[in-house]
Amino acid sequence: MHFTSEQRLDDGVLEREFTLGEIPGILWTPGSGSASGSASAAAYGSTTASASTSASAPVSVSVSAEAPAPLVLLGHPGGLRGMYPRLVARARQCAAEGFAAATIELPGSGDRPRSAVADQARADLRRALAAGEPVGEEIVDRLVLPLVDKAVPEWRAALDALLALPGIGGPVGFSGGVISIGVRLAVVEPRIAAAVLFAGSYVPRAMFEEARQVTVPLHVLLQWDDEGNDRQAALDLFDAFGSREKTLHANLGGHTGVPRYAGDAANQFFVRHLR
Amino acid sequence: MHFTSEQRLDDGVLEREFTLGEIPGILWTPGSGSASGSASAAAYGSTTASASTSASAPVSVSVSAEAPAPLVLLGHPGGLRGMYPRLVARARQCAAEGFAAATIELPGSGDRPRSAVADQARADLRRALAAGEPVGEEIVDRLVLPLVDKAVPEWRAALDALLALPGIGGPVGFSGGVISIGVRLAVVEPRIAAAVLFAGSYVPRAMFEEARQVTVPLHVLLQWDDEGNDRQAALDLFDAFGSREKTLHANLGGHTGVPRYAGDAANQFFVRHLR
Repeated sequence: MHFTSEQRLDDGVLEREFTLGEIPGILWTPGSGSASGSASAAAYGSTTASASTSASAPVSVSVSAEAPAPLVLLGHPGGLRGMYPRLVARARQCAAEGFAAATIELPGSGDRPRSAVADQARADLRRALAAGEPVGEEIVDRLVLPLVDKAVPEWRAALDALLALPGIGGPVGFSGGVISIGVRLAVVEPRIAAAVLFAGSYVPRAMFEEARQVTVPLHVLLQWDDEGNDRQAALDLFDAFGSREKTLHANLGGHTGVPRYAGDAANQFFVRHLR
Repeated sequence: MHFTSEQRLDDGVLEREFTLGEIPGILWTPGSGSASGSASAAAYGSTTASASTSASAPVSVSVSAEAPAPLVLLGHPGGLRGMYPRLVARARQCAAEGFAAATIELPGSGDRPRSAVADQARADLRRALAAGEPVGEEIVDRLVLPLVDKAVPEWRAALDALLALPGIGGPVGFSGGVISIGVRLAVVEPRIAAAVLFAGSYVPRAMFEEARQVTVPLHVLLQWDDEGNDRQAALDLFDAFGSREKTLHANLGGHTGVPRYAGDAANQFFVRHLR
């Protein structure tokens, strides 16, 4: 993991871009003393950055270490640049509770090499939607399953690197979509202690079987009128999760219309499970 | 409205039983200075009680008046005595935010005269359930619609009396079940500013039409595995509500298993809308 840039946001949050091999990512850590109402305000030890792209020189950060911060992995549908405003807002909410937050680019998205299989599946999906046809399971499988297979090991590698940083100690939460990535991570990655899942993407049938194997506490967000989402599939997936603690928060509005109070409630879920 | 008894609970909440004509009820008001995190800690002016049953003499209360408290009406399925432990717990949560809370007995429940129509409908319902038959719409209509028709004017009369008390000023929230009573109240009673509805009882078809007329912010609680509840009907009802702000919180567990954090979230909904 190489840090390539850093900036201090107005609320004291330290934002650092990094690369993990070829994968770009962003890490946000709370400013020391910035955690409001937090019993575990975190500060961060010294790291040395290199291989700078947006900053021209290696960057070093040195802050005295306190209690290591829990970490929230911020999932998203791909395309860090476009997603940045929403990601940084979620990261600030995490930081306000004393949590570190981090994300990496998805395979085939942003500046990463395209996937011919995924591009074809996306084209087939668009064609089906434009023709008013139902989106076949076969298209969804081609669109999502290879992405999950490739992304999940990358998120686990990122977890290895992030948890090796001074000041970040876990426990770890996953927050966001692609929901199938969150499901697989919750099943295979024992360091994930709790997950907030956004029910806003197509879900292959095979993921319902994996959902039954999820046991960590879950907080599922569903936008009731999400144009690109199958509400019934989201409800079926919620029903399938094996977790003893699972909560569904459904709110009126479309895909990007998650109300502020729903974000606050998701954050409170992490406060209950990661502190 | 006649107060018949009062006691100060250990957290400073003042609990007063009352009768409104023949209808028994309970009013809880926050102790002065007991509202944690509240911008509107409320105290209560003087009232005089009479027609005492559990206390043998008239009771008078005298506290200096501050900002009048918002009021939450606590709905329930009937039978104040059996429901008391859960009602007082919800009332304490309200009081902690500076809200008054009140409830009245339902028609045909507790010590109130039985309804032959309701008793017959309940018997038919039990017979259908015991026989493993689907519960017919006709039974649900006989069970719920007369109850709604009779209860809603009583809750409105209680509201008149409660809002006339010193120290209680509104705005008013409704919290609980019977969900059809909450729906009708939200439609016909303009003083209801927000409602937390428990999706835990049978809903007549006719109520779906009324649900479309509801416009106040709604927070709907659904116990995902509620034995006596039709989950799909609850989801359909949520879909039908006309409110621009509506949230569904579904949690794992049966009818009485609402988790503590779900109660906290419902309380936060009232903090957003009643303060």
